[in-house]
Amino acid sequence: MTTLNRQIHLVSRPAGEPSADNFKLVEVPVEALAEGEVLVRNHYLSLDPYMRGRMNESKSYAQPQPLNDVMIGGTVGEVVASRNEHFKEGDKVVGMGGWQEYQRVNANQRGVLQKVDTTHIPLSAYLGAVGMPGVTGWYGLVKIINPKAGETVVVSAASGAVGGAVGQLAKARGCRVVGIAGGPAKCEAVVKELGFDACIDYKAHNDVRSLSKALKEACPDGIDGYFENVGGMILDAVMLRANAFSRIAFCGMISGYNGEPIPMTNPSLILVNRMKLEGFIVSEHMEVWPEALKELGGMVATGKFKYRETVADGIAAAPEAFLGLLKGRNFGKQLVKLI
Amino acid sequence: MTTLNRQIHLVSRPAGEPSADNFKLVEVPVEALAEGEVLVRNHYLSLDPYMRGRMNESKSYAQPQPLNDVMIGGTVGEVVASRNEHFKEGDKVVGMGGWQEYQRVNANQRGVLQKVDTTHIPLSAYLGAVGMPGVTGWYGLVKIINPKAGETVVVSAASGAVGGAVGQLAKARGCRVVGIAGGPAKCEAVVKELGFDACIDYKAHNDVRSLSKALKEACPDGIDGYFENVGGMILDAVMLRANAFSRIAFCGMISGYNGEPIPMTNPSLILVNRMKLEGFIVSEHMEVWPEALKELGGMVATGKFKYRETVADGIAAAPEAFLGLLKGRNFGKQLVKLI
Repeated sequence: MTTLNRQIHLVSRPAGEPSADNFKLVEVPVEALAEGEVLVRNHYLSLDPYMRGRMNESKSYAQPQPLNDVMIGGTVGEVVASRNEHFKEGDKVVGMGGWQEYQRVNANQRGVLQKVDTTHIPLSAYLGAVGMPGVTGWYGLVKIINPKAGETVVVSAASGAVGGAVGQLAKARGCRVVGIAGGPAKCEAVVKELGFDACIDYKAHNDVRSLSKALKEACPDGIDGYFENVGGMILDAVMLRANAFSRIAFCGMISGYNGEPIPMTNPSLILVNRMKLEGFIVSEHMEVWPEALKELGGMVATGKFKYRETVADGIAAAPEAFLGLLKGRNFGKQLVKLI
Repeated sequence: MTTLNRQIHLVSRPAGEPSADNFKLVEVPVEALAEGEVLVRNHYLSLDPYMRGRMNESKSYAQPQPLNDVMIGGTVGEVVASRNEHFKEGDKVVGMGGWQEYQRVNANQRGVLQKVDTTHIPLSAYLGAVGMPGVTGWYGLVKIINPKAGETVVVSAASGAVGGAVGQLAKARGCRVVGIAGGPAKCEAVVKELGFDACIDYKAHNDVRSLSKALKEACPDGIDGYFENVGGMILDAVMLRANAFSRIAFCGMISGYNGEPIPMTNPSLILVNRMKLEGFIVSEHMEVWPEALKELGGMVATGKFKYRETVADGIAAAPEAFLGLLKGRNFGKQLVKLI
């Protein structure tokens, strides 16, 4: 009896906006385990904005996603078979299983699969608040923005998994925290659920002048730190309100992914305001993960950290859920539930 | 008998490019010294790009230069009268005397006037290599770019006083150093006199693609550090050749001074290349001056540091010399000789 594994492959690269045609559902048999290997049944697949970058052929910080192969992605699941002494059936694990239901993995490779404790933390949170998005927010906030109590921190894509982490970690450090999100419902939740001091609906602003005015009202003492998830008009507006010695952590530039780069209108503000701008990729800073996960895990386990999940159902729904994520249709962490 | 002091005042703010009409020569009597004051006869006036920013009304890192008052500026000179116990006639001093022949100053204010030793270092060098421009280059290179031996550092405005310092300090640290300057004569001197490994004539390139290609040839291992004096197309071209974890020190953005900001075409490269960009103003980092001046002074005194000066004659020539500086007509440090 052969177990079938359903996978999503990338079969073509997008010219401009990606579409469902770039993906294809493929069924393959699960092959027998070799010595040292573990078979994981993935429970949740994580969908993240960085995957859009991988779909392109062009030079980026990472290798492009190969065509006709399983899309890359973080997963949490359960060990269902093991020929590795460090893992046994029933272990809950986090890894990079990709867009598929089963993952056969050589668990002797350092770091490919990690056991997690679900006593106080839900399994899915290891893909969000206590996973890559949480640590991403932690790194940009703590290591680049490094805010002092009383400073003002602005976060774009505030209702997303990364943005929510940045804001709540900044609040815990005594900062004034202002989010930017799309639409009144998201903005309301960012303030009421996630505890931000204010949230600006960028969709209510047609130009940089209007958005900058809203930022001035929400940030009466100016902006000391900005966690950049978006780029474009929002970056321009924030820079107009940036204080001397302010810091910007560059995490994502969604608005530039679909082709033409979107310029920064006034880079001379970097000099005028003696700003520091720094780009980072959290996977290059594995040394901070234990410290970051300790803080994030503690906050989640004690209920001090709030987050939402948007959950699509079944591997076949992954492409549409991913396209929705790129359009901002999710609230909080976008997941695909596989079981 | 009254000594007359000739001064240059700013009498109007430029709308776009500045012109000689923005300035006016004024003659005033030198007044008697009060207790604690010193009268300095200025020998050299320093002309620097930052003065262009001060001519504008708009918000910047510094107060605008007031209208109908002596233009701000660094000076070196000789004490000709003193009612201050710390200074005596004949002392050579550096200060912020402004665009005028004589400077009456309360020398009890900390840091307004500093005695300098001209045994091994020419007086004028305290306005260049062993002064603000030298320390500016030192700070951006050492504290922001912080290059390792073997890395490639690019410097725009390479034939200027700051650029020359950056390049020679980087060479002393074992870097490959590539300058960017305007015209074949400057480029030749940057290589042959200042010892850069290569220098690109930006005037020979009409677009970012062409300039970026020239950078690729001059920087076969990519660019690890960039000292930004200019902005615009040069910044865009450098960013296209920037290595992972490269650093840009923002010192000047001349191309943006005359009105419209000049955009950065592709800020997503900050993320893609995990770059760090940082603006700075050297007067905010007085703590590094002793260390920087020690290195720079040692190099100048032992003939290891090469520099050129472009010297205008007499206070009346200052406005035209300044306008020439903004157009890149100088080579090396632009001075006005007053005596």
